[in-house]
Amino acid sequence: MRKLTVALGERSYPILIGEGVLDSADAIAAAVNTPRVAIVTNDVVAPLYLDRLTATLARAGIAYDSVVLPDGEAHKNWQTLNTIFDALLAGHFDRSTTLVALGGGVVGDMAGFAAATYQRGIPFIQIPTTLLSQVDSSVGGKTAINHPLGKNMIGAFHQPQLVLADTAVLNTLPDRELKAGLAEVIKYGLIRDPAFFDWLESHIDKLLGRDPLALAEAIERSCANKSQIVSEDETERGVRALLNLGHTFGHAIEAGMGFGVWLHGEAVGAGMVMAATLSQRQGWLSMQQYERTVALIARAGLPVLGPRLGAARYLELMAHDKKVEAGRLRLVLLRDIGDAEIFSDVPTADIAAAIDACCESA
Amino acid sequence: MRKLTVALGERSYPILIGEGVLDSADAIAAAVNTPRVAIVTNDVVAPLYLDRLTATLARAGIAYDSVVLPDGEAHKNWQTLNTIFDALLAGHFDRSTTLVALGGGVVGDMAGFAAATYQRGIPFIQIPTTLLSQVDSSVGGKTAINHPLGKNMIGAFHQPQLVLADTAVLNTLPDRELKAGLAEVIKYGLIRDPAFFDWLESHIDKLLGRDPLALAEAIERSCANKSQIVSEDETERGVRALLNLGHTFGHAIEAGMGFGVWLHGEAVGAGMVMAATLSQRQGWLSMQQYERTVALIARAGLPVLGPRLGAARYLELMAHDKKVEAGRLRLVLLRDIGDAEIFSDVPTADIAAAIDACCESA
Ligand SMILES: NC(=O)c1ccc[n+]([C@@H]2O[C@H](COP(=O)([O-])OP(=O)(O)OC[C@H]3O[C@@H](n4cnc5c(N)ncnc54)[C@H](O)[C@@H]3O)[C@@H](O)[C@H]2O)c1
Ligand SMILES: NC(=O)c1ccc[n+]([C@@H]2O[C@H](COP(=O)([O-])OP(=O)(O)OC[C@H]3O[C@@H](n4cnc5c(N)ncnc54)[C@H](O)[C@@H]3O)[C@@H](O)[C@H]2O)c1
Ligand SMILES: [Zn+2]
Ligand SMILES: [Zn+2]
Repeated sequence: MRKLTVALGERSYPILIGEGVLDSADAIAAAVNTPRVAIVTNDVVAPLYLDRLTATLARAGIAYDSVVLPDGEAHKNWQTLNTIFDALLAGHFDRSTTLVALGGGVVGDMAGFAAATYQRGIPFIQIPTTLLSQVDSSVGGKTAINHPLGKNMIGAFHQPQLVLADTAVLNTLPDRELKAGLAEVIKYGLIRDPAFFDWLESHIDKLLGRDPLALAEAIERSCANKSQIVSEDETERGVRALLNLGHTFGHAIEAGMGFGVWLHGEAVGAGMVMAATLSQRQGWLSMQQYERTVALIARAGLPVLGPRLGAARYLELMAHDKKVEAGRLRLVLLRDIGDAEIFSDVPTADIAAAIDACCESA
Repeated sequence: MRKLTVALGERSYPILIGEGVLDSADAIAAAVNTPRVAIVTNDVVAPLYLDRLTATLARAGIAYDSVVLPDGEAHKNWQTLNTIFDALLAGHFDRSTTLVALGGGVVGDMAGFAAATYQRGIPFIQIPTTLLSQVDSSVGGKTAINHPLGKNMIGAFHQPQLVLADTAVLNTLPDRELKAGLAEVIKYGLIRDPAFFDWLESHIDKLLGRDPLALAEAIERSCANKSQIVSEDETERGVRALLNLGHTFGHAIEAGMGFGVWLHGEAVGAGMVMAATLSQRQGWLSMQQYERTVALIARAGLPVLGPRLGAARYLELMAHDKKVEAGRLRLVLLRDIGDAEIFSDVPTADIAAAIDACCESA
């Protein structure tokens, strides 16, 4: 078992990574300081892992109840969130309750937001079961639901007490979801960890083959990178914005195609290629590093070209993205592999040309 | 103009109190660090004070928009909250937006929760327009909406940048609402400020006559008491619980009669009499101090007897109150005027007898 600590003063918490951590009654007992827990999961994950989690809780001597949500991003909304509140209130759960999120990023974001707002905040634990949620969404304390007019528009910052990332649960994850998670893994290498990028170049095939040790290493280094950034900037006012590499382009792809058509990680893959292309054309990223970037994204099985929506449509969608602060489009671009920076003065025509160069042909 | 500071480290903020502070463009300009503000108010307060606020914002050179909610506690729910989000998203308000709550506690709680959760948190300003909101709900950072299964069950802690309490707006407040606000004012004297209690005994008639200097003094001393408590205990783990004097009984009255039949302050008035009665019977509060307590509540025009729901029903409703932690009923009781303490071991039969002694005869 590997252990990391997210350093946030008195709200610091451990991340435990490895095969079988889901069975660790000790870890859970140490993190739960309430007499009861309520598990939030969904109807895909529950049949796979809920019994294992409840067995662990039983061994830890903790009383539990569970709420099973319908699966999917389409349900990441107020109606579904309310079913969590309904269950908690109907079950007379008071503030002495820990919520446990068992599932991917959708479950984690919703359970986290429920924990942030139920009776003005109760403790919670993340048990992420997708690669994306293990390397990204379960770390950092961001929680949210979607609004019909925008993704993740309603949410809160709320840090968990513990994150348990069990590599074994990834064995049941669909291939496409695994690859989508790798986009965020590669992102950490690109924005701040060149040695990790090198490591990924030589281990990408093992990761795709779900080698448990390679996965644990990738998850640990990803979480270490993210947690360092989060410790420096808990509420996203500065350096945390670097985590958005490829995301402004990617969100335009997701929104332009209709959410769910492209997976988030797939859109981020193509978006990182767009960011790298623009960086190279502006003379910031060398051609060689640019080529390594695109090659690794391709080897991870991710798309390197976006859908042909037209640059104008991309720009329109990007202008709606919340990374726009006070009307200025801020883009994360690369100086080098492992060295990212925020730019808010790139000429629109250059952005458009880079997008056009990175779209599928008609 | 009187000024107080709520000391919360880097989230400290000023409370400005006095006649006409609503016109203070300087105060607002100093607190707003965003290019735009969105005002949240309701259809009773908007016709009275919205133009004055927008004139102040115009003088301060700040762009604004407003959302007018339907009036009343019945609308303090997710549906109404969503109309705030709808308006913010439709108006392309990004994170560089300050929300301004203009209204009583209902508007303040909803606008505050919207600010706590819109794009994971944006700044906000409280302009409370009822006595209750000026002395209580606008200070302390608690925000919430109701759930069909419980009041204030969904919420967050989110501190404002500024509180502006204009005594002049109280001139249009219905008498019953003014008296209800006085219940919370008296509460501060009872739980921790005996000198303020003495002052209230000699100024209660001026307060009922809406004398602006007396009101400003009462608001300032109330806010000073509340903000000291909040500074010590921002998220209600310890001393902040003293603010619940009379509230556990009071909530039973509100819930038992159907919310809205008794005003919150009226229920707290009768609830404080129940708490004082129980305190006196347990031998903690002297008979003389008990009598002063009941007399002041009565002179403020507040009920000193609760509705005859039956002690069993009271106890059942009190057990559902969220002041119950891990199943134990915690009550705030008085050792003296100005000296309150939390007890969780009072025999149920004694609580029931005190309730029965303080209810209207059949
Ligand atoms: N909070 C943050 O910081 C943050 C960061 C990135 C993404 N997110 C959010 O995360 C969400 C995406 O998360 P995701 O990619 O995990 O999607 P997801 O939660 O929808 O999971 C993908 C699919 O895999 C299923 N699944 C989960 N675990 C499984 C397992 N072990 N075996 C088989 N199937 C399994 C899920 O039920 C779902 O059908 C988005 O809503 C996004 O906004 C949040
Ligand atoms: N957040 C907290 O810490 C906290 C503390 C106490 C109470 N509260 C909440 O506050 C709410 C009660 O607040 P309230 O008592 O202000 O009720 P309210 O907001 O409903 O106001 C009472 C009535 O007076 C009207 N009104 C407001 N200002 C007026 C004015 N200047 N002139 C004429 N009419 C005016 C309102 O529109 C409403 O009809 C409850 O929802 C309660 O839960 C919150
Ligand atoms: Zn992402
Ligand atoms: Zn109150």
